[in-house]
Amino acid sequence: MPGLLNVGVVGLGRMGSVYARNLAQRVPNARLVAVADQKTELREAFGREFGGVRVYENHQELLNDKDVEAVVIISSTSTHQAVVMDAAAGGKAIFCEKPMSLSLEGAYQMQQAVDQAGVFFQMGFQRRFDAGYMAAKKKVDEGVIGTPVVMIATSRDPFRPPLEFCDPKVSGGLIADMGIHDFDLGRMFMGEVKTVHAVGGALAYPEMKTVGDIDNALVNMVFDNGTLGSVQLSRNSIFGYDIRTEIWGTKGSLQIGYFQHTPILVMTQAGITHDVVPHFMQRFEGAYLTQIQDFVNKVQQGQKPSLTGADAIAAMRISLAATLSCHEGRPVEVSEVDVKPAPVG
Amino acid sequence: MPGLLNVGVVGLGRMGSVYARNLAQRVPNARLVAVADQKTELREAFGREFGGVRVYENHQELLNDKDVEAVVIISSTSTHQAVVMDAAAGGKAIFCEKPMSLSLEGAYQMQQAVDQAGVFFQMGFQRRFDAGYMAAKKKVDEGVIGTPVVMIATSRDPFRPPLEFCDPKVSGGLIADMGIHDFDLGRMFMGEVKTVHAVGGALAYPEMKTVGDIDNALVNMVFDNGTLGSVQLSRNSIFGYDIRTEIWGTKGSLQIGYFQHTPILVMTQAGITHDVVPHFMQRFEGAYLTQIQDFVNKVQQGQKPSLTGADAIAAMRISLAATLSCHEGRPVEVSEVDVKPAPVG
Amino acid sequence: MPGLLNVGVVGLGRMGSVYARNLAQRVPNARLVAVADQKTELREAFGREFGGVRVYENHQELLNDKDVEAVVIISSTSTHQAVVMDAAAGGKAIFCEKPMSLSLEGAYQMQQAVDQAGVFFQMGFQRRFDAGYMAAKKKVDEGVIGTPVVMIATSRDPFRPPLEFCDPKVSGGLIADMGIHDFDLGRMFMGEVKTVHAVGGALAYPEMKTVGDIDNALVNMVFDNGTLGSVQLSRNSIFGYDIRTEIWGTKGSLQIGYFQHTPILVMTQAGITHDVVPHFMQRFEGAYLTQIQDFVNKVQQGQKPSLTGADAIAAMRISLAATLSCHEGRPVEVSEVDVKPAPVG
Amino acid sequence: MPGLLNVGVVGLGRMGSVYARNLAQRVPNARLVAVADQKTELREAFGREFGGVRVYENHQELLNDKDVEAVVIISSTSTHQAVVMDAAAGGKAIFCEKPMSLSLEGAYQMQQAVDQAGVFFQMGFQRRFDAGYMAAKKKVDEGVIGTPVVMIATSRDPFRPPLEFCDPKVSGGLIADMGIHDFDLGRMFMGEVKTVHAVGGALAYPEMKTVGDIDNALVNMVFDNGTLGSVQLSRNSIFGYDIRTEIWGTKGSLQIGYFQHTPILVMTQAGITHDVVPHFMQRFEGAYLTQIQDFVNKVQQGQKPSLTGADAIAAMRISLAATLSCHEGRPVEVSEVDVKPAPVG
Repeated sequence: MPGLLNVGVVGLGRMGSVYARNLAQRVPNARLVAVADQKTELREAFGREFGGVRVYENHQELLNDKDVEAVVIISSTSTHQAVVMDAAAGGKAIFCEKPMSLSLEGAYQMQQAVDQAGVFFQMGFQRRFDAGYMAAKKKVDEGVIGTPVVMIATSRDPFRPPLEFCDPKVSGGLIADMGIHDFDLGRMFMGEVKTVHAVGGALAYPEMKTVGDIDNALVNMVFDNGTLGSVQLSRNSIFGYDIRTEIWGTKGSLQIGYFQHTPILVMTQAGITHDVVPHFMQRFEGAYLTQIQDFVNKVQQGQKPSLTGADAIAAMRISLAATLSCHEGRPVEVSEVDVKPAPVG
Repeated sequence: MPGLLNVGVVGLGRMGSVYARNLAQRVPNARLVAVADQKTELREAFGREFGGVRVYENHQELLNDKDVEAVVIISSTSTHQAVVMDAAAGGKAIFCEKPMSLSLEGAYQMQQAVDQAGVFFQMGFQRRFDAGYMAAKKKVDEGVIGTPVVMIATSRDPFRPPLEFCDPKVSGGLIADMGIHDFDLGRMFMGEVKTVHAVGGALAYPEMKTVGDIDNALVNMVFDNGTLGSVQLSRNSIFGYDIRTEIWGTKGSLQIGYFQHTPILVMTQAGITHDVVPHFMQRFEGAYLTQIQDFVNKVQQGQKPSLTGADAIAAMRISLAATLSCHEGRPVEVSEVDVKPAPVG
Repeated sequence: MPGLLNVGVVGLGRMGSVYARNLAQRVPNARLVAVADQKTELREAFGREFGGVRVYENHQELLNDKDVEAVVIISSTSTHQAVVMDAAAGGKAIFCEKPMSLSLEGAYQMQQAVDQAGVFFQMGFQRRFDAGYMAAKKKVDEGVIGTPVVMIATSRDPFRPPLEFCDPKVSGGLIADMGIHDFDLGRMFMGEVKTVHAVGGALAYPEMKTVGDIDNALVNMVFDNGTLGSVQLSRNSIFGYDIRTEIWGTKGSLQIGYFQHTPILVMTQAGITHDVVPHFMQRFEGAYLTQIQDFVNKVQQGQKPSLTGADAIAAMRISLAATLSCHEGRPVEVSEVDVKPAPVG
Repeated sequence: MPGLLNVGVVGLGRMGSVYARNLAQRVPNARLVAVADQKTELREAFGREFGGVRVYENHQELLNDKDVEAVVIISSTSTHQAVVMDAAAGGKAIFCEKPMSLSLEGAYQMQQAVDQAGVFFQMGFQRRFDAGYMAAKKKVDEGVIGTPVVMIATSRDPFRPPLEFCDPKVSGGLIADMGIHDFDLGRMFMGEVKTVHAVGGALAYPEMKTVGDIDNALVNMVFDNGTLGSVQLSRNSIFGYDIRTEIWGTKGSLQIGYFQHTPILVMTQAGITHDVVPHFMQRFEGAYLTQIQDFVNKVQQGQKPSLTGADAIAAMRISLAATLSCHEGRPVEVSEVDVKPAPVG
């Protein structure tokens, strides 16, 4: 039996804190040995609560900590490239939250760095570790629905983020920011994407136009094998967090997703009412835990990463092509967005 | 109180028989006085069952019957133009089942004929008379979901028709044959369509390729007001008839449609299971009755038709544009499909 | 092929009108030849709408009509005994809506009369002809849920009837008036009932006490074979008509019933809402048609009735025992309520 | 801000391990300082995993540990009395998992001991801390459903425990073992119970008779205020864990509970299928955490316990009365089961 894997977490924001707590408390074969965050109050509060965990200001200090075997990178996307490249240089096993980078060039450079260093590198796409998507993948593989021919994916956030986070220079824009999960699922269930066509608009929040973003979009996809995909994205799911995916096959269909959060129905003269999952952490809490457990297991057991940089780059390419299609009003071949060096695959 | 409206039905096939029975038995202010069908056995069997109803071989004989005030045309699409033009010339009130015609030119000629004759002319699109869609329209008009910004429509048939009926020369092709209902709903809920983009393939039944048709398609729409629509069409809904529509608004959403047919859940070690609405008549039986009742009421009360030829032509234009988009792999402006004379508005 | 069965309907109230219309229009092998009702306006309005149907004031006039082969009795319960006995004396085939009689003595006398006359006699319990209950019975018989061991039945009306109809001297009281359907289903799925225990109260409408009735009750049953049943009755289902039944078996369970009426979900910040089946005709419209079709078929084909007087008497005995239990606060053996002559069966 | 509460856990079986882990990892204001279990392997494995936690063989050793401020008792029911009385004598704050004791006499003695010692004493009934039941309680208190008049509770376990655990001398029998949660909920939503009537049988597992237990039961309750309750208990919920409760009010109803476990629907020619929550830990994992968090909070903040010994005794009295009713075939007043000393109130 292997011992505990010593892990450091870079970034203690909302998501980083979830990862750090999961590693400290709920992943039996991991030991959280260090955290790093430039915000003094975040790292000091964490340090007070978790007495034995070392607290650093900069990621490089954490990487210099000889006890850190693996690093989990949950800092802001703009920092991913520097942290990953430093961690690769330091020989650490790496987990990096999506999106890999804001630019395809950056992602290629990160991939080159980890390839050259030969370190373990796993990307985070938590939906792949959700019980519903895992059950769906298993059933597809078992042939329960015959051959998948269409994927329908709906991703709807319950509210608009602050405008500064909607700025496509920060978020990549609606299609990249929200759709990348669905594009990744498309690759998981259907295969590689050949062509996309997207339409969108700032329909619910006109102020979106001031930062150059949209709040609703529809993306049609044609996969290499001729099968089809539809992705529906929205920022104004005012009733809750609405994530649903359908895998449509020749012998049946799988629907993944649900609405209801609290197990109670209210039946009055107004009809029958229930609430809705409020946001992503309530929906995917278990998936985040399963995902980081999977990373620790894979590192410890010397297995291949469940999601590679090539996977993340492939999803980014679709995102970029769909964004381009939406801007130019025409179908876009995914290969149009490629830059040198050629895509890793 | 007006007396009974004397109605004749042209066409006694599967759907024509439903219309004729509804008019004979379930529309209190109508009297079925005559039916016409070229198939001897169909019209004779009907005549035996409904003693007082006159039975004709040709539609012209039925139109010559002085007692026939209104004619309901459910014969095959290829005959619609001739029957409608003869009925208009005969001064009858006309109900015509969708699709109006297989060609836009034919539809324009029909529209011209009824306009010139000044007769009452109502098109059939039964979904508009379904309790779910009517409730949705009412709620949208009441502002329950704010402003509609996206429509998502799913239409899935439980099996492939015989190949000869799939031939686009007969059916118009998958997108026109099945999608026209969804395009009509798009106009009802969102407005006129400006641009469409469609992708499709013969993915479940490769033999479809032999007649030049497809079995699955996705259509993205942009409406004149900038709002969006997605239509998902399939012939291989192997578990049942799957018709769902979502109207997505700034303050909420409406989902129309359901799966369950028989009010029973089976709970065994295999899980919890229920059946599915098998086909369109089980789903829309009430809508067909409501629709023909509406026609009789409107004629009797001298009101405007609920759906005009212009409505049917508008839905046809979208169908044709989407079919063209699917063939040419590019977005198509709906106005590209226009022919002379200019579209009726 | 047999010809048409000539049927007369006694009673044109709300339910009688439904039966008469079904027989006139929707049962192909029946011909409605006569109706009878003491209310002048009811019978004259019906006669105006259905030109060829003869209209009588008294049931005896209808029974004297030589063309009437079968009689469908939907008049008020207090008249059932006289009409059935006269119809039996007249040699008619008889369908009688539940409840058979307000007293067990009356029911025995009716049964004796039809037995002596040797006429066809079928009782109405429409739930047995509902698609859900028929599917459940089929699955139980196929062994899908193993051996049934518990039945849970819920019957809830959306409002209180006028107090004069709640008077137990008219209605039999809540347990008899509403529960008799569930007791009949208990016999259909589980077998004969040995012992009952009931509790109840005027909990939602205190004014019920002024007529000596209750508005909510719970009945526990033990069947002869040792299996169990629970019946839950209520008059204050303010959100709609709530009829559900569960058959609980050793290898699984069947749930019959549903809430949703219109196929639309409303999703707003208030949550996800749908409506509810409003009342029994919306829920069981199909069952009433299937039931009267079954009667006509059975008479024409010379088969045994689907539900006999003995079935109705058995359900009445359970109703009376449960009512007695509720009054006396003790378990009651069903046989305690027997009167002379001994129960038929 | 108070510091951390130092807690010891007695009993490291399946449930004890859940409590110990929750206290060690997921209750921020608690510190797990010690555990005790007579099984060497259980306590040594726990000690290896949680390095800083002291490990004792006997509960008395744990109680002697001066650092232990509060004790959480999850050992077998037969040991509850001795541990609680020793903990009370030691002045510890006490949390005791249900059932309090196998005998009412024992429970009274425990209650006397904690009263005399003046220590904090909270009983565990985790359903009260489930999000669904908490939401229901809040809505009832807000008047959303008017006045509650009937409670319907269904508790069904997915399989039969080993026969030795079914022995009523160990488990108290089906009605006490499973029903006590529902009786507690009855008190929470409706008030005190006056009379019960129960029927039951060994219907699914005939071998139950060899140990004198049953596998299915129905219990009718009349509350002091005249409202009604029905509890349905079963050991053969072969498809999963089925816990549902309905609070039926004068203006509406609340249904608590759900079936679906994994967020996926499978749609094939067999129909639409989903899975079911497999067992209680999957259903109530969150409730167990909320419950022990509540205990720690209440102790730290010097507040009253959320559930007292009197609450547990009240639920036990109903259990005993219902069991007696089932044996004797008659309604039983709850007060019939009282013993000296008089019930604590």
